[in-house]
Amino acid sequence: MGLDRVVRPPPRLVFWYEFASTYSWLAAERIEAIAAAAGVAVTWRAFLLGPIFAAQGWTTSPFNLFPAKGRNMWRDMERQCALMGLPKAVRPDPFPQNSLLAARVATAMPESLRPKFSRAVYRAQFTEGRPIADRAVLAALLHDIGDGESARAVQDALTAADAPAVKAALRAATAEAQALGIFGAPSFTTASGELFWGNDRMEQAMAWAEREARGAPL
Amino acid sequence: MGLDRVVRPPPRLVFWYEFASTYSWLAAERIEAIAAAAGVAVTWRAFLLGPIFAAQGWTTSPFNLFPAKGRNMWRDMERQCALMGLPKAVRPDPFPQNSLLAARVATAMPESLRPKFSRAVYRAQFTEGRPIADRAVLAALLHDIGDGESARAVQDALTAADAPAVKAALRAATAEAQALGIFGAPSFTTASGELFWGNDRMEQAMAWAEREARGAPL
Repeated sequence: MGLDRVVRPPPRLVFWYEFASTYSWLAAERIEAIAAAAGVAVTWRAFLLGPIFAAQGWTTSPFNLFPAKGRNMWRDMERQCALMGLPKAVRPDPFPQNSLLAARVATAMPESLRPKFSRAVYRAQFTEGRPIADRAVLAALLHDIGDGESARAVQDALTAADAPAVKAALRAATAEAQALGIFGAPSFTTASGELFWGNDRMEQAMAWAEREARGAPL
Repeated sequence: MGLDRVVRPPPRLVFWYEFASTYSWLAAERIEAIAAAAGVAVTWRAFLLGPIFAAQGWTTSPFNLFPAKGRNMWRDMERQCALMGLPKAVRPDPFPQNSLLAARVATAMPESLRPKFSRAVYRAQFTEGRPIADRAVLAALLHDIGDGESARAVQDALTAADAPAVKAALRAATAEAQALGIFGAPSFTTASGELFWGNDRMEQAMAWAEREARGAPL
């Protein structure tokens, strides 16, 4: 026994999310449970859709550019939130919010803290309508989620967000997302670069990552 | 017994589909089994996305206008076809195909024949790359699916497709779709006008129609 057992790295999936994206919120709420059930390790990477949208000539969200699509999205959010047991979604004003600072803060903090911080930002934005571009709002959220050993790392993230290295890291994440073919959020990529778009594809992405890691046919 | 039992109409769902739409194909392949399991009666209504896209300034499919979105769609189709046990999807040339004649033929035929005809058109287009705007292609498909009593009705549909009343009926279907808020295909609407967009929302649409018909909370 033993010789035929190869030690393989665990399945991994990158979760690409944009703080202004409603469906990224839904994905952030459920990805940890789905990943645990699938045995997949998830890396949370915030990125910006703005530059990617701008590259295809869009100056705002497609949900604003195409009103019927936007009306459907907000109605779908109501239904999805009810199905998921989440508070009723509210439309922040303006929509989309400027997500730059939140994305820099997430980039600046240790990866292990991102899920809790990111969900706090989404809930503040999409259930309370709070302005996530406001530094004081983010400071309050950071204060609420920091406890014990992590308190300092969490609170340092707002200062660290202004560092040139953090700004560069977020720009690099967005460039990498675009190079991977990402055009919307949430998206998921496997180690080999297989891309899945949308909260509705999360389960398939997990299954793909799991098969890919064990060398099974895809 | 009996007095407290109200005779309710069966749950109904309208399936709005566009012949040039890849995800409408996937929906057409599975909707009958899903509807039977849910106890929902489905009305198949072909419509045209072209006029709806044109109204928002698009001259072709968003999968062509936005190349990253298009690449993802074709890759997603490969994965979805494999999961559903369908033949590998091929990209017809040109994409999208002109779907006007196929939609008129579907409109002209008895509703009971539409599922079989529509799937034949989708498979010819998306697994064999045949040109569905070609009258001879549609004639051959109609010949293949017509049998017994339905043969005449099926074959008459190609002639009937040119009738002013059929052209008007298809224009009316497209106008009704737009009035219902439809902006993409496939879409599903319940008796009350609740709109669901996308093959991925089919199950939710069925469940909604079922609850709506029995007067359950939505």
